Amino acid sequence: MTGSHAAGAPAPGRVQLIGCGPGDPDLLTVRAVQRIAAADVLVVDRLVGEGVLAHARADAVIISVGKEAGGPSTAQDEINRILVREALKGHVVARLKGGDGFVFGRAAEEIAAVRAAGIDIEIVPGITAAHACAASIALPLTLRESVRQFSLVTGATADGDIDLDWTALAAPGQAFAIYMGVRTARTVRQKLIASGAPASLPIVVVENGTRANEVAVATTLGDLIDAIAAFAITGPAIIFGGLAWGDANLTIPDKVHVYRAPSDRVGETAHAPSAPDAI
Amino acid sequence: MTGSHAAGAPAPGRVQLIGCGPGDPDLLTVRAVQRIAAADVLVVDRLVGEGVLAHARADAVIISVGKEAGGPSTAQDEINRILVREALKGHVVARLKGGDGFVFGRAAEEIAAVRAAGIDIEIVPGITAAHACAASIALPLTLRESVRQFSLVTGATADGDIDLDWTALAAPGQAFAIYMGVRTARTVRQKLIASGAPASLPIVVVENGTRANEVAVATTLGDLIDAIAAFAITGPAIIFGGLAWGDANLTIPDKVHVYRAPSDRVGETAHAPSAPDAI
Repeated sequence: MTGSHAAGAPAPGRVQLIGCGPGDPDLLTVRAVQRIAAADVLVVDRLVGEGVLAHARADAVIISVGKEAGGPSTAQDEINRILVREALKGHVVARLKGGDGFVFGRAAEEIAAVRAAGIDIEIVPGITAAHACAASIALPLTLRESVRQFSLVTGATADGDIDLDWTALAAPGQAFAIYMGVRTARTVRQKLIASGAPASLPIVVVENGTRANEVAVATTLGDLIDAIAAFAITGPAIIFGGLAWGDANLTIPDKVHVYRAPSDRVGETAHAPSAPDAI
Repeated sequence: MTGSHAAGAPAPGRVQLIGCGPGDPDLLTVRAVQRIAAADVLVVDRLVGEGVLAHARADAVIISVGKEAGGPSTAQDEINRILVREALKGHVVARLKGGDGFVFGRAAEEIAAVRAAGIDIEIVPGITAAHACAASIALPLTLRESVRQFSLVTGATADGDIDLDWTALAAPGQAFAIYMGVRTARTVRQKLIASGAPASLPIVVVENGTRANEVAVATTLGDLIDAIAAFAITGPAIIFGGLAWGDANLTIPDKVHVYRAPSDRVGETAHAPSAPDAI
């Protein structure tokens, strides 16, 4: 592993790719805490919470490479270069990613770059956002008889078209969590309905899941766009489809808002407020 | 919450439904460790590792309700009754489940029973087996361009027929993890191939993922049954489909065995051994 280094150069360090969960530091794994505390250098994504960094050594170097959706970011190649550069200095490098690094996290590119430089890499799994949000709002992701398949999909797209198997997602009995889908929610809604999903499909949007500013809204596919607007949801969010507390014989937790568009409010007066219900 | 209790009865305790991850205690979350250490009573599934229970108080009561696939088990109704009974005694009850409680874990039934008794319940997410196994063998679950959807499905069935959207799973670009699919692997293979999946579809089987006795085998859908037999895989396992290290520009880790059935070994002599390759 060290053969490519000049004589006298320090022995290479190593890289640990660490899934840091949804932001709440109590949802770090024990291993993640250990690895963060032992790192010389931390290379940190935007969605990693401040409480997570509280586990770092006081003398650790923290390099922020956060990618803002649609905003400025550190190019992936540059992140790869930083990881290799720091490890070749002999450092223990902790690469901190939000959620689980293997879900929509571009981990493969970082692993390939690090290994190509002859550097060891360890992968530490993390709680991915869908699972963290589901626990926070007590929404089971599968049900024994009726929901036997649960999918993680990305709503992010560079060009406005999202290449997913919409027909499969729209099929009855499907449950799914859309990551990075708020900005493309209009497309998601249109594709699902065009593929046969009913406007009444249960939808739950969870913004900033597990954090102090978490907002959860239960609505329908038909009302998804209005619900996002009504609650001004712009932060990182998961959009669940095909999951409903009632199907699990559960009631909706108090902290979850319920949104119906005003036009759906059958039997209400013409003076019904346009503000969202929080039933 | 206490109105239904007789005067003089202890105040009800509470229940915490805790996902304990894949078995390796270092993959518990910080919150899970805290909750386990604070519990008076632990109601424990079979797949929860011994190292997890090491966090329990010395004086805690441990009630095992493990369900053995196809073997003796504690009925779900009985588990529900135990949770309610212990909480009504005023105890802090930790319900320990393998993986994440909301994935194929029948959590909904336990939450409904506990809430119906007027008892508070908290849900703590855990690392589900698919994510833990993927990290252990460095197999990314999504790829930026080619794998934008990843599904968790159950291969467990009571009657031999598995009600899944096989056509969707068999479609190109799909990636999935089958839970509890070893015993039904023959049906899974037949259904996928009948739905259009190629025999060459990449498959990775991980038995006892993250534990000391982990066995991982990379093979193809066509060779799945032979691979399971060759490595005598009978323990809890995840079967990944549609994921390949090569697609991520990664090499297969040394610890992963590669299996091809003897009849597939083109160019090898007639004396090719029938034992599995471990390339």
